[in-house]
Amino acid sequence: MEEIGGMIFEGAWAFLKRQYSTIGWLSIIVAVVVGALVGLLGGQRGIEGITAFGIGWRTGVAFMAGALCSAVSGFVGMIIAVKANARCASASQHSLKEAVDVALRGGAVPGFLIVALSLLGVTAIYFAYGGANTPQIAPHLIVGFGFGASFVALFAQLGGGIYTKAADMGADLVGKVEAGIPEDDPRNAAVIADLVGDNVGDCAGRGADLFESTAAENIGAMILGIVIYAITGNVAWILFPLVVRAFGLIASMIGILCVRIRGDENPMNALNRGFYVAIGLSIIGMVVTVAVMLPIEGSRWGWLALAGAGIVGILTSIIIVFITQYYTDARFRPVRSIAEASKTGPATNIVTGISVGFETTLATAVVIGVALLLSYWLGTMTGLPGAGAFGTAVATMGMLMTCPYILSEDTFGPITDNANGINQMAGAGEKIRRITDRLDAVGNTTKALTKGYAMVSAGLAAFLLFQAYLDRVAFFRGVAVFNDVNLARVEVFVGALLAVMLVFLFSSLAIRAVSSTASKIIEEVRRQFREFPGILTGKTRPDYARAVDITARASLRGMILPGLLPVVAPVVIGVVFKPFANYDSAMVVAALLMVGTIAGIMMASFMNNGGGAWDNAKKYIEDGQLKDENGKPIGKGSFTHAAAVVGDTVGDPFKDTAGPSLHVLVKLLSTITLVMCPLFI
Amino acid sequence: MEEIGGMIFEGAWAFLKRQYSTIGWLSIIVAVVVGALVGLLGGQRGIEGITAFGIGWRTGVAFMAGALCSAVSGFVGMIIAVKANARCASASQHSLKEAVDVALRGGAVPGFLIVALSLLGVTAIYFAYGGANTPQIAPHLIVGFGFGASFVALFAQLGGGIYTKAADMGADLVGKVEAGIPEDDPRNAAVIADLVGDNVGDCAGRGADLFESTAAENIGAMILGIVIYAITGNVAWILFPLVVRAFGLIASMIGILCVRIRGDENPMNALNRGFYVAIGLSIIGMVVTVAVMLPIEGSRWGWLALAGAGIVGILTSIIIVFITQYYTDARFRPVRSIAEASKTGPATNIVTGISVGFETTLATAVVIGVALLLSYWLGTMTGLPGAGAFGTAVATMGMLMTCPYILSEDTFGPITDNANGINQMAGAGEKIRRITDRLDAVGNTTKALTKGYAMVSAGLAAFLLFQAYLDRVAFFRGVAVFNDVNLARVEVFVGALLAVMLVFLFSSLAIRAVSSTASKIIEEVRRQFREFPGILTGKTRPDYARAVDITARASLRGMILPGLLPVVAPVVIGVVFKPFANYDSAMVVAALLMVGTIAGIMMASFMNNGGGAWDNAKKYIEDGQLKDENGKPIGKGSFTHAAAVVGDTVGDPFKDTAGPSLHVLVKLLSTITLVMCPLFI
Repeated sequence: MEEIGGMIFEGAWAFLKRQYSTIGWLSIIVAVVVGALVGLLGGQRGIEGITAFGIGWRTGVAFMAGALCSAVSGFVGMIIAVKANARCASASQHSLKEAVDVALRGGAVPGFLIVALSLLGVTAIYFAYGGANTPQIAPHLIVGFGFGASFVALFAQLGGGIYTKAADMGADLVGKVEAGIPEDDPRNAAVIADLVGDNVGDCAGRGADLFESTAAENIGAMILGIVIYAITGNVAWILFPLVVRAFGLIASMIGILCVRIRGDENPMNALNRGFYVAIGLSIIGMVVTVAVMLPIEGSRWGWLALAGAGIVGILTSIIIVFITQYYTDARFRPVRSIAEASKTGPATNIVTGISVGFETTLATAVVIGVALLLSYWLGTMTGLPGAGAFGTAVATMGMLMTCPYILSEDTFGPITDNANGINQMAGAGEKIRRITDRLDAVGNTTKALTKGYAMVSAGLAAFLLFQAYLDRVAFFRGVAVFNDVNLARVEVFVGALLAVMLVFLFSSLAIRAVSSTASKIIEEVRRQFREFPGILTGKTRPDYARAVDITARASLRGMILPGLLPVVAPVVIGVVFKPFANYDSAMVVAALLMVGTIAGIMMASFMNNGGGAWDNAKKYIEDGQLKDENGKPIGKGSFTHAAAVVGDTVGDPFKDTAGPSLHVLVKLLSTITLVMCPLFI
Repeated sequence: MEEIGGMIFEGAWAFLKRQYSTIGWLSIIVAVVVGALVGLLGGQRGIEGITAFGIGWRTGVAFMAGALCSAVSGFVGMIIAVKANARCASASQHSLKEAVDVALRGGAVPGFLIVALSLLGVTAIYFAYGGANTPQIAPHLIVGFGFGASFVALFAQLGGGIYTKAADMGADLVGKVEAGIPEDDPRNAAVIADLVGDNVGDCAGRGADLFESTAAENIGAMILGIVIYAITGNVAWILFPLVVRAFGLIASMIGILCVRIRGDENPMNALNRGFYVAIGLSIIGMVVTVAVMLPIEGSRWGWLALAGAGIVGILTSIIIVFITQYYTDARFRPVRSIAEASKTGPATNIVTGISVGFETTLATAVVIGVALLLSYWLGTMTGLPGAGAFGTAVATMGMLMTCPYILSEDTFGPITDNANGINQMAGAGEKIRRITDRLDAVGNTTKALTKGYAMVSAGLAAFLLFQAYLDRVAFFRGVAVFNDVNLARVEVFVGALLAVMLVFLFSSLAIRAVSSTASKIIEEVRRQFREFPGILTGKTRPDYARAVDITARASLRGMILPGLLPVVAPVVIGVVFKPFANYDSAMVVAALLMVGTIAGIMMASFMNNGGGAWDNAKKYIEDGQLKDENGKPIGKGSFTHAAAVVGDTVGDPFKDTAGPSLHVLVKLLSTITLVMCPLFI
């Protein structure tokens, strides 16, 4: 066990070192370019004692701070997870309860670290840049922090996502399909790369992703708070997001400590109980914070409306958990229909899976739409100008209060997945394997939930970040309000068209990177099988390290192009469209941002849920639950199972590379346009 | 040959009879409902001597007229095509030249009929509703005509598309994959259904689709023309679209007559030469019409700008031909990369195909974006208010001038496809089969071109129809101008979100209908193989009629849900959102329309081109052009070929059901919102 754990750690470490040195160089270049552009070209308008150049360098420094925090989040998360998995495997020899404890608490370390770091980072930069003395300016300067965080998050998620799924696809195709050996079989040279991938993709990538979410949303809400601060003169409106986040941290912590498995129950139930505790405490924390911090003059019960908006956000996080389960759990129609379609081969499996994935956009869109309308409406109830958007901000804060809990559950996934893999490779006994197998299935669910959660919170936050963008444009234009993104103008319409295209193109590049990396792995494993026939008979040990190395190099090369696209495209479009828009393309960029966000979330919904459904349709068949005409179970090795494996393989890059990267893309679009907006005016 | 042709005719006839009786009933219901809603609830505001009730019944009558013309277009197109295919098969026994002549002129009958009918229909209703006496009102009344046309087109395209692809998928999966018999093999019970499908899907469906395009765009341009008429007092601005369309008809007719094959050349070259003739004549016709009809007071050369916009449109149609070829022709990288990916199995084939399909949105979006910006800019050069949008209208007109030619090429596709199938079934000699095989490949290309053309013209026309919508809203609000669709408002943003979702959901339903219909066919063919073992040995003739019947019933059932979605959704959203939008949801509906159009076009680009690329990647392998490591061709029957067949099968419902239906959806959204707009105000 220790040997295997060691190999995984080594591979992951080598990959991350390389990945982060690439990202580091890119970040430094971008920091300098952004600082220079904003300082020299964009911010002709100095603000209250800060020169344009001053805005530039402060933005650059904030960018580097955000990038660094994001990188640390990913790195530490991954290391803890890798260390925890061998321990989880070992704990599984004792009992299910112990294994769950190790996995969940292992997951909690990065989960809490990430949220705490984002809170500290934003707060520190806020005060470093003047804090309460210049409350109208500091939040505008720290948008660089959010941009740095999302920049690193995008590359971490993309690089890790490409790595993990290329390794998975490669290992599956050449192992299960071609050579006919089981998953995680030690004879497969790509198996260590596959296990490494779970850590670098799911932990490091998602860690950076959610770090970025929490940071960007804090900043967005703070910028909105400025508008209300300008009226009420109460600085609490700006600091409110930071306080709510702190309460969320405490609620989640208590929730985690409440997780206790009773007897032989489904571990998912215990996790859900903990989640409900966190939800309950969050609601209390939200109501108290709003009541204390946000009194509304002349309206005794106005704060209740804002508290209501917060509760809408918190409830949204529960609803999305149910929806994700409906679409990705084999108890329900969607997954079963995919399994059923596999009977007529891979083509019908794929067509049905795509159709299910497309269908999921309905629930996602309705949930986001209702939450937005409701919280906006509650916000306007307060009677304060601009409070409608602040209502959606409070809802977003509410939704993200349980973020540390969700993140802990998320890291629980790869830890148990790896523990299961280690047990399999180490040849642990049947009983122990059954424990980690069960945990692995639970981990699949929690991973899917996190994606649904990340997606919907991105949707809510998006509207918040638009408002922040509009306020920032007004600020740089020197006008009181900018609140018009008119799709009926031809250049704005074309901007929206390009936004949807960008989402498709980005997905194309991300998926292509996975398949081209996977084909390199397949070639390598085939070569090893061919050149060392002893591998298949179990006499020779395959060269795991070489497979790990090839995967790392190919996936790092693959992440560059899709990673740069969302960074470069908004800037290029913003600059190129200036002549078509009276030399002020802020509105075109706003359309790009808004419609791009919508398309990104819908596409992510398709990819995440579709991929999850394909995966579990395969598991459903493997569990022997699908029956043929005579009522006999159709299991592994059948024509139907082979078809389901094809679907699972297609779904892999969807749900673990393109889908999660799209969340980051959506938020990167927001932060880059926030930072670069002086350029468009 | 005659026997087979007869069976195809019979099957197609039976299907169409059933399909159109369903559509007929639906149309009557919708006509009454629409007339009543608009008359009683919506148009409280009577217009210049016409009561609200008068608007209602006139809209209803126009709807029925549009529906009828659309149905006739589809019906006649299909009948001519079915009659032409046996003749084409017989002509192929003489020479390639003769076969091309028969197929192209067969295709020209519906091609010209459709365009002529739309021209006549719009003109007739325009004059029946007052014509030049009430030029400000008549175009508003005939939007019902466009709605009727798109309503029928959607169901025709959906029903036909589901039929054709379910039959194709079913026949392929059970024949080629399971039983290992070649395509169009007479032992396959679904083979006649497959051939019937080519006619009812590609001819009847696309005929109704493009009838609708030309009609809706005429109306949109006429409504825009009203604005300029109001300033210039020259009624020519309203009638201009009809005259240009007539010129296009003549240009295309001459183009068709110029098609002559030289020796043994690729028939595609001859078709292209004819197309260039049509293009050249269209440019002349456009310049002359603009010069004569649209003089601009005070600006001697202002008409040149409008002529320039027209030429932009005409050139766009050539560019799109090249782009479609790049993505769907095996001479270029995309198709080859899919073929290459098939070597590692169906999963990599699918992933690569999806990635190629996503990539195609780049070219589509850029072409539409550039054409829109350029023609809008040229329009504003004239200095007339509202002429920017009129510039894009002229460009759309320009693009659609060659529509009859493109339509003839399109119907050429199924005719040659069928001729090839008939030759195969009738056991014609190798030499004759080679001729129809070549023509079939050309037909695949022309079919793909038509889809690209329909898609981009839908994109250009969309912007035109938005303007018409905005003008109509202003008209019913009783204000001079309504020109603001503000995405920064929360309810408008949610409308845009729902629009993208609608596109995904519609695609999901359309695809699902195909796969559920296909599974019924597969069961039937399997049953016949099982119960009559003589079929596979060639002793017993399979029961073709039963397979045809099952397909027809299942596909008609399948078309209802996806067909009603885009009809019901905009109305429901428009009404439900009223309380959130100060009881005037016109802006929300506008966002739904605009963003839905963008998403629809991007999704259609993915589906049409991706599907075409998969198809031709399979053909590329079948032609033996893909080589293995040792340079030996990998042909039919290999693992790689089987993988490519999976991709082709997945692509089928994309490119022939969901993709083309999305064009109609886009235009249906425009026409339904145009008709229903009194309801939202």
